[in-house]
Amino acid sequence: MSFSVTILGSSSAIPTSKRFLTAQLVNHDERFFLIDCGEGTQIQLRKYKKKIARINHIFISHLHGDHIFGLFGLLSTFSMLGRRNQLHIYSDPILKKLLTEHLDFFQKEINYPIIYHPISSKKSQIIYDDGKLEVSTIPLLHRVPCVGFLFREKQKPCNVRKELIGFYNLGIKDILKLKNGEDYLKDNGEKIANEILTIAPPPAKSFAYCTDTKAKESILKYINKIDLLYHEATFQDEDKELAKKTFHSTATQAANLALKANVKKLVIGHFSSRYKKEINFLNEAASIFPNTLLAEDGIEIEI
Amino acid sequence: MSFSVTILGSSSAIPTSKRFLTAQLVNHDERFFLIDCGEGTQIQLRKYKKKIARINHIFISHLHGDHIFGLFGLLSTFSMLGRRNQLHIYSDPILKKLLTEHLDFFQKEINYPIIYHPISSKKSQIIYDDGKLEVSTIPLLHRVPCVGFLFREKQKPCNVRKELIGFYNLGIKDILKLKNGEDYLKDNGEKIANEILTIAPPPAKSFAYCTDTKAKESILKYINKIDLLYHEATFQDEDKELAKKTFHSTATQAANLALKANVKKLVIGHFSSRYKKEINFLNEAASIFPNTLLAEDGIEIEI
Repeated sequence: MSFSVTILGSSSAIPTSKRFLTAQLVNHDERFFLIDCGEGTQIQLRKYKKKIARINHIFISHLHGDHIFGLFGLLSTFSMLGRRNQLHIYSDPILKKLLTEHLDFFQKEINYPIIYHPISSKKSQIIYDDGKLEVSTIPLLHRVPCVGFLFREKQKPCNVRKELIGFYNLGIKDILKLKNGEDYLKDNGEKIANEILTIAPPPAKSFAYCTDTKAKESILKYINKIDLLYHEATFQDEDKELAKKTFHSTATQAANLALKANVKKLVIGHFSSRYKKEINFLNEAASIFPNTLLAEDGIEIEI
Repeated sequence: MSFSVTILGSSSAIPTSKRFLTAQLVNHDERFFLIDCGEGTQIQLRKYKKKIARINHIFISHLHGDHIFGLFGLLSTFSMLGRRNQLHIYSDPILKKLLTEHLDFFQKEINYPIIYHPISSKKSQIIYDDGKLEVSTIPLLHRVPCVGFLFREKQKPCNVRKELIGFYNLGIKDILKLKNGEDYLKDNGEKIANEILTIAPPPAKSFAYCTDTKAKESILKYINKIDLLYHEATFQDEDKELAKKTFHSTATQAANLALKANVKKLVIGHFSSRYKKEINFLNEAASIFPNTLLAEDGIEIEI
């Protein structure tokens, strides 16, 4: 089952010649979830050959322009491509008002329903659950209400060994019990241990997206031991005062959170365009948390 | 003196992997004028190494998303780059309301003045004149109020031949009279013809931008014998009924207008993404008006 995230934009505030503004596309089992939608997101989706029409859920972290100015064009393009599917947008409730006013002027003939799901930034909420994947919010600390998103696969049940189904003449009820973790009781009372008859399922994977935010340890409980953490690193350590003042994080701070949370891999992004040597973001973070990756537009990371 | 236009986006409605949405940058004597501002315009400006901060005038043809959704990000970027210069925006007056509401929410601390210049689409108006260059509107025919823009250099006066200034001992008054087209009268009454003493100035150049519009002959009087005409060609001739219905033009129609107006060069753009063979736009137009160029993102055309 596929579970990956593609970086569509990794610059903060202002695009650069190499980096578009923030957006990421999560693919879970060929269902596609867009996180944030900076200007040019629809252009990146095309460039990286993503199927725009299959995005049915858009999660918006906060209402700063560099995270949402691509929504206007994307919603318009959906309409021009003849979309009929519902589109679900999860965001600060004010976005509904902004987008409604906008659509009233620019896109009167929108031909698909938009379902708005209001998000509170005060406490974590489960905002999506399709039985295979759950998405919940992570309260962050920025200049405006802001949340991160935690994508967590549901633990799949174990699989019963096919070759033993016939051998023990297992029925559907037996199989369901085995999948439920129970042992198998033969008609003669003999017990066959669950682990003999089953194969452990692949581990459930998890991904957290945390931007924009001042580095805060209160997120540790959400990201503990997850497979992949995307955390913003707008600034380098030399500018930690600026990070504090603007409610952003440094690469050092992001790496320290990854270390404390025991995550498997860290990706840092949302880089300020002020730095000439981007490699210093990586050097700084990897000296604390070695399994760090620098976000680059277009890379797809398996979770 | 430089006079050129750079194509920043040449797709209509929806961006493609090769073409961004409509925007063009006119450079006249190192002053920069932006025409329209589709999503991603600021990204293209960076990509093609244009000096964003030197854009002081933005001309908006009409209020469709594919011509203005890049404004939100550009105005925000101006602010973040510390702009202090006035920004002049020429457009349908409704844009002022839309942008004001937008800025009230997203960019409260905008640090430069925006001067809005309302445009009527009913009749041609001179909207800009700096003594060297004049910009006037061309009423177009689209589904919403829409204008084209005619950039016309002012005719420069002739230059007096330097080597003859000393020979005839010409004073400032004499030189001004010569620049004004008068002959020179020597103290002894002898007349020296103006053309002996002067060099003809370079011809004043002109450029017209006409999109989006149904092809209409009423524009001929504005574009007669201009140096460069950019005219939209959203559709190919096989779809002329669709062009009519959507108030757009075909490549054939654009070429016929160029031919009738005796323009020197035609550039067509604003192509619908429905066509696989873009070369057919060129084949179609060039069979009528040979000096036709296909717009490509990033090309800079000398006028």
